[in-house]
Amino acid sequence: MLERSDVPPSLIAAAAANFAVVRAHSVALAAPLSDEDCAAQSMPDASPAKWHLAHTTWFFETFILERFEPGFAPFHQAFRVLFNSYYNGVGEKHPRAERGFLTRPSRQMVADYRADVDARMARLLAADLAPAVASELASLVELGLHHEQQHQELLLTDVLHLLSRSPLYPAYDEGFAAPVASPAPGWRGFEAGVVEIGHKGGGFCFDNELPRHRQFVEAYELATGLVTNADYAAFIAAGGYEEPSYWLSEGWAWVQARKIRHPLYWVEGAGGWQEFSPAGLRALGPARPVLHVSYFEACAYAQFAGARLPTEAEWEHAATIAPLPQMFGVAWQWTSSSYAPYPGFAAAPGALGEYNGKFMVNQYVLRGSSLATPAGHVRATYRNFFPTDTRWQFTGIRLAR
Amino acid sequence: MLERSDVPPSLIAAAAANFAVVRAHSVALAAPLSDEDCAAQSMPDASPAKWHLAHTTWFFETFILERFEPGFAPFHQAFRVLFNSYYNGVGEKHPRAERGFLTRPSRQMVADYRADVDARMARLLAADLAPAVASELASLVELGLHHEQQHQELLLTDVLHLLSRSPLYPAYDEGFAAPVASPAPGWRGFEAGVVEIGHKGGGFCFDNELPRHRQFVEAYELATGLVTNADYAAFIAAGGYEEPSYWLSEGWAWVQARKIRHPLYWVEGAGGWQEFSPAGLRALGPARPVLHVSYFEACAYAQFAGARLPTEAEWEHAATIAPLPQMFGVAWQWTSSSYAPYPGFAAAPGALGEYNGKFMVNQYVLRGSSLATPAGHVRATYRNFFPTDTRWQFTGIRLAR
Amino acid sequence: MLERSDVPPSLIAAAAANFAVVRAHSVALAAPLSDEDCAAQSMPDASPAKWHLAHTTWFFETFILERFEPGFAPFHQAFRVLFNSYYNGVGEKHPRAERGFLTRPSRQMVADYRADVDARMARLLAADLAPAVASELASLVELGLHHEQQHQELLLTDVLHLLSRSPLYPAYDEGFAAPVASPAPGWRGFEAGVVEIGHKGGGFCFDNELPRHRQFVEAYELATGLVTNADYAAFIAAGGYEEPSYWLSEGWAWVQARKIRHPLYWVEGAGGWQEFSPAGLRALGPARPVLHVSYFEACAYAQFAGARLPTEAEWEHAATIAPLPQMFGVAWQWTSSSYAPYPGFAAAPGALGEYNGKFMVNQYVLRGSSLATPAGHVRATYRNFFPTDTRWQFTGIRLAR
Amino acid sequence: MLERSDVPPSLIAAAAANFAVVRAHSVALAAPLSDEDCAAQSMPDASPAKWHLAHTTWFFETFILERFEPGFAPFHQAFRVLFNSYYNGVGEKHPRAERGFLTRPSRQMVADYRADVDARMARLLAADLAPAVASELASLVELGLHHEQQHQELLLTDVLHLLSRSPLYPAYDEGFAAPVASPAPGWRGFEAGVVEIGHKGGGFCFDNELPRHRQFVEAYELATGLVTNADYAAFIAAGGYEEPSYWLSEGWAWVQARKIRHPLYWVEGAGGWQEFSPAGLRALGPARPVLHVSYFEACAYAQFAGARLPTEAEWEHAATIAPLPQMFGVAWQWTSSSYAPYPGFAAAPGALGEYNGKFMVNQYVLRGSSLATPAGHVRATYRNFFPTDTRWQFTGIRLAR
Repeated sequence: MLERSDVPPSLIAAAAANFAVVRAHSVALAAPLSDEDCAAQSMPDASPAKWHLAHTTWFFETFILERFEPGFAPFHQAFRVLFNSYYNGVGEKHPRAERGFLTRPSRQMVADYRADVDARMARLLAADLAPAVASELASLVELGLHHEQQHQELLLTDVLHLLSRSPLYPAYDEGFAAPVASPAPGWRGFEAGVVEIGHKGGGFCFDNELPRHRQFVEAYELATGLVTNADYAAFIAAGGYEEPSYWLSEGWAWVQARKIRHPLYWVEGAGGWQEFSPAGLRALGPARPVLHVSYFEACAYAQFAGARLPTEAEWEHAATIAPLPQMFGVAWQWTSSSYAPYPGFAAAPGALGEYNGKFMVNQYVLRGSSLATPAGHVRATYRNFFPTDTRWQFTGIRLAR
Repeated sequence: MLERSDVPPSLIAAAAANFAVVRAHSVALAAPLSDEDCAAQSMPDASPAKWHLAHTTWFFETFILERFEPGFAPFHQAFRVLFNSYYNGVGEKHPRAERGFLTRPSRQMVADYRADVDARMARLLAADLAPAVASELASLVELGLHHEQQHQELLLTDVLHLLSRSPLYPAYDEGFAAPVASPAPGWRGFEAGVVEIGHKGGGFCFDNELPRHRQFVEAYELATGLVTNADYAAFIAAGGYEEPSYWLSEGWAWVQARKIRHPLYWVEGAGGWQEFSPAGLRALGPARPVLHVSYFEACAYAQFAGARLPTEAEWEHAATIAPLPQMFGVAWQWTSSSYAPYPGFAAAPGALGEYNGKFMVNQYVLRGSSLATPAGHVRATYRNFFPTDTRWQFTGIRLAR
Repeated sequence: MLERSDVPPSLIAAAAANFAVVRAHSVALAAPLSDEDCAAQSMPDASPAKWHLAHTTWFFETFILERFEPGFAPFHQAFRVLFNSYYNGVGEKHPRAERGFLTRPSRQMVADYRADVDARMARLLAADLAPAVASELASLVELGLHHEQQHQELLLTDVLHLLSRSPLYPAYDEGFAAPVASPAPGWRGFEAGVVEIGHKGGGFCFDNELPRHRQFVEAYELATGLVTNADYAAFIAAGGYEEPSYWLSEGWAWVQARKIRHPLYWVEGAGGWQEFSPAGLRALGPARPVLHVSYFEACAYAQFAGARLPTEAEWEHAATIAPLPQMFGVAWQWTSSSYAPYPGFAAAPGALGEYNGKFMVNQYVLRGSSLATPAGHVRATYRNFFPTDTRWQFTGIRLAR
Repeated sequence: MLERSDVPPSLIAAAAANFAVVRAHSVALAAPLSDEDCAAQSMPDASPAKWHLAHTTWFFETFILERFEPGFAPFHQAFRVLFNSYYNGVGEKHPRAERGFLTRPSRQMVADYRADVDARMARLLAADLAPAVASELASLVELGLHHEQQHQELLLTDVLHLLSRSPLYPAYDEGFAAPVASPAPGWRGFEAGVVEIGHKGGGFCFDNELPRHRQFVEAYELATGLVTNADYAAFIAAGGYEEPSYWLSEGWAWVQARKIRHPLYWVEGAGGWQEFSPAGLRALGPARPVLHVSYFEACAYAQFAGARLPTEAEWEHAATIAPLPQMFGVAWQWTSSSYAPYPGFAAAPGALGEYNGKFMVNQYVLRGSSLATPAGHVRATYRNFFPTDTRWQFTGIRLAR
């Protein structure tokens, strides 16, 4: 998870300012939630909001304060284990599926933890630091804030999953904006050739976006917009979930075993399909993009539509030379690319190096960003990744051919 | 779950008074808990405190108000499903393992629900009722209150299990009294003969305590007290969990698969064994009774000690003619009796009849009562029952031979 | 598994003769089977026929030859582990679910193993033995032969299960006789009182039939015959498998999870129900007893019929004083008695003592015997036992009330 | 599974000749096996040898005889379901995990099935056919024979797995040759550039090898030989299975959950490591290539060795321009390429089209061929593929950097 941007020592003040803004945004995201909402965990893949608030704080305490703060003493001894996510290098972890059992420490205690670490971080960043230390510190702060922004999106998707399990279908925020409608159907063509993908430098990126390198792509077309709810409803109406020939073999087994019949948050009502969203349950907007579909569903729909999913190289190349509507800010777009290291990829040494490389198997890359991605956390080179049956993220479909 | 006592119509006022007392006790039990504590569920067998508070209310709304209240309208339409435990006759149920996902309705809304039903019950019980109606109503109220008392014990055991999963080992109530020490070892003998067991009438009982009937018991001895922590620690020290000959075959498989090495809430510390309790983590009291053991462990210990568990007829006969120390108020005592209908047992018709009969398989009877059993909920004929691997209840061991 | 009969030393010749007869019967049972049939295992609860043939031989080699044969050397070193069933006292065991992977040793090698042990046993029994040794040896031989007879019944039920998994529905033996039809419906009454059950001595019994002891039974009636296929088909036609009120709670969960809709070997064909049997697939005989039902199904049927299952004391008392049709030789009859030690029960010391006591939990007693029980292995005091979902044995239903 | 070679009608005679040779080889492979060996299935991923013999026959009966044979009648009606592997387009399938329960049909009956289909195929291929029909028929025969060759390799790997489960470690064939030793360590370099991979035409290939297309590869080096047993033993000795930093996250979970400590067929003996092979148990040859490792193990070893796995483009490019030792005939070599369609890939229509495309998810490509791959089934463009935890195939490791 080493970031690679060059941070002049003078930027330490900027880091401190950014720190305050990003940290405050996490708290704001949890504001509509009750203490109960913050503590519950509705599946092992999701985490309680309280856990996100604590774990992002743990990151600063463990990877920055522990190293740079004079006379460091942890806020609470047990938190080192409790709020470690998956860093084997740091030591033991609390079992992931049991995060919802941690009603203690309380939400208030976690708020105190955040305030304490924030104050210590502010002191540290205001201190008189040697230039080399300041530079490294600024880099680590930037990394920690990007890490926190990832958890901001997860916090929202995890809360949405939790609220979806209550038959009351409570809204997270009734005023939460719906995604924009897709444009009229259309395709944009791109020529074959050797293209460059990966981060160019000049700004932050994660290690998995490096190194920039060449790939050969054949000529291809990308859909100008995302597949809509109306498109997907037609797939369902045509028996899409009952016809094995549309599905990957493993996808078909998943559909059968889990009795999947529609996107995760679609609810069949007397008046037709509804969808659950951060704004609560609402009628399905036919022109809005379909959300919360798995890689299996995305592939099956593409097969049904006589198309395919783009590769990540195709997507990034297009995003660079001729961006299309809905590439960012609506839904993460499944690509057909298995998540793998770029040629010449090197993970960072130490615990921080566990971040990306070890997940590079049996996951697929998603590109773009979603309506839940924080501002300042969006790049054409960004590589999101999830297993093939994941649906609780804001995932959608852009076709290629 | 039909109760069988005769309730003269004049007792309706007593029922109303008792109603207020028992209902208030449930609220008092939840008072030390935060909203987060009340909402979490740490295993499928346990339920959130909030769920207990709502379900016991649902019982009165569904089985009494719905039938007797003029112009009945439910407090909330969805609660009929949400807070049904296992009554198939009432209709659908929310999945048991997902009770912890119900952060909505909130704790406050459940408090409102309790207040609303309490007020409506008070109005109903104060109304001018025909004698037959009043009599039936008083019976149902009595049943509902005994049902609530069962859930009061479960609320405490479920909360204890939840708190045990936090590495902070938070106390439910630091002043919660420890169980009394066991008496010096000793045996009391009883003669062989035909004995009568089961409820005699004259007061409330559950249907599974009826009918009173005869059984033949051979001569036997019961231990005067419960097996102590020191006794049980000796079993562990002697390799009790490593020696298959002490264990039932199924118990041995359970020990191996679950890596069981000590009672549920024992914690090995630097200074020796500790135990987690409602008062928090404390040093193990050697003379106090061992708690939180399964039927498998109780049998293995008995085998190790050259004794056996009593049958429920032996236990009840002794409790009737010559009660021994610690029979009540400390720990439920495993018996070797599989939970089965008494000769001539008849379940009540309708949904209430689902209460006891349908669980009469693959469970074992526990007798007595525990430190968590509410006053007024204790009888020598009471038949508690749990599966053989259950440990989160306040269960202990009394030997027989 | 200590047997309790008194065997005068003069009976050693009788033991030798009996040995030859019983051992030959096992081989005869496997005669209709191909090598492939003998090696396969269709579920963990069942064992390959070849395994039964070897394990029963292992019993004599391990518990008799190893102890009494001068200069004992095992037929094959690996067999001690391979053909141990569940005797922890003997040492390691081959994983039960993997018995079907043992294509080596071959069937022929197992036949050689039988021949070798038979010859050595014959030599041992013909030797000049001290009276005390002869007496103990005769007892152990008797025990080993009863053990083998148990496996003879299992061999047949296991093979039937295997053959049932082939869509060709091959017959084990086309001439295998169908069970006799049930008599006309009727009840026989018995008076209340203290009765004695358990083995009286004078002949072989297993340790679980001892000691003979007193029980009090209320007045009861037993059905004169077994529940028929026509009776059971009426239960199905009446929606028996869809109505939870007939079922124990655990039984209802089993029906739902496993999608149980009829007895194990019933097959719905164009012309109505058929049943698979040792004679192959045949039309369901309406007057023949229903076979291959679980305890759950037996209880649900009894509930549907307004009756109940008998206790084992009721069954044995009736069998002793006024035997009814179909008590023996047709189907094992589920009782409502959980399998538990008789008052005063003592398991034998050593590995042989593992036989019965350690299974006394979460199983139910079946009484009588079935069409697959070998002659000479039938007693009114015999206690068979299986878990509540067992169906591949020849199990049936006799009602009580 | 459409093959793409051009088969002039005159080649029908060649097809017939090839048919006889390939079909006879399957029978020869099963010759060392007993009937028991042929019927057993030691895990769901493997199939009984008898099933392979029948399924490959089913392929010719279903996809050729049913379409081309005048007056077609199936050999046995039930075989259409019994011996269908995964072709949803053909209809129902027998459950994969229950293939070992099919002791009937017997091995002899399957031999009769093979003889019958072979005779009918011979008649068909000798008939007077229209040129277009002859051409299509020759193509389908070629496809069917390549399909059968795939099953020949599986037959051997499946039998090896079965025999490995017997503690007797029986040899499949004591004279079976061990793999050749690896050459001295070394690397061969290749330049960066656009390369072409995929089948060129002119001979048979599977649909997944098409279309031939361009890829850009950076400069790389390939190891001249395969990782040896000595290399891999050093990894184990260095604690490779205990150090999470070598492992992909999912691989580490697999190692922990399954307690993996060495390659599948390594056995620790008194004198050091041994390995089970078709020739039986033998001492581990230090210079021989390590076999039977998963993708997870291959990646972990590469990480340990400071190298990586090659991509399939790197491997194929090298194999085309400068073949290295042990590329073919020893062990399938894991690549880092997720199994995915080539740009422009199109699956064939109909049931035969199910062959490859639907497996293109969560599997990794292996290149080369193994000591069990039949002659005539080896190509530089061949794409084998298995899930990341697969070990029972003859899989090995070639490093890249």
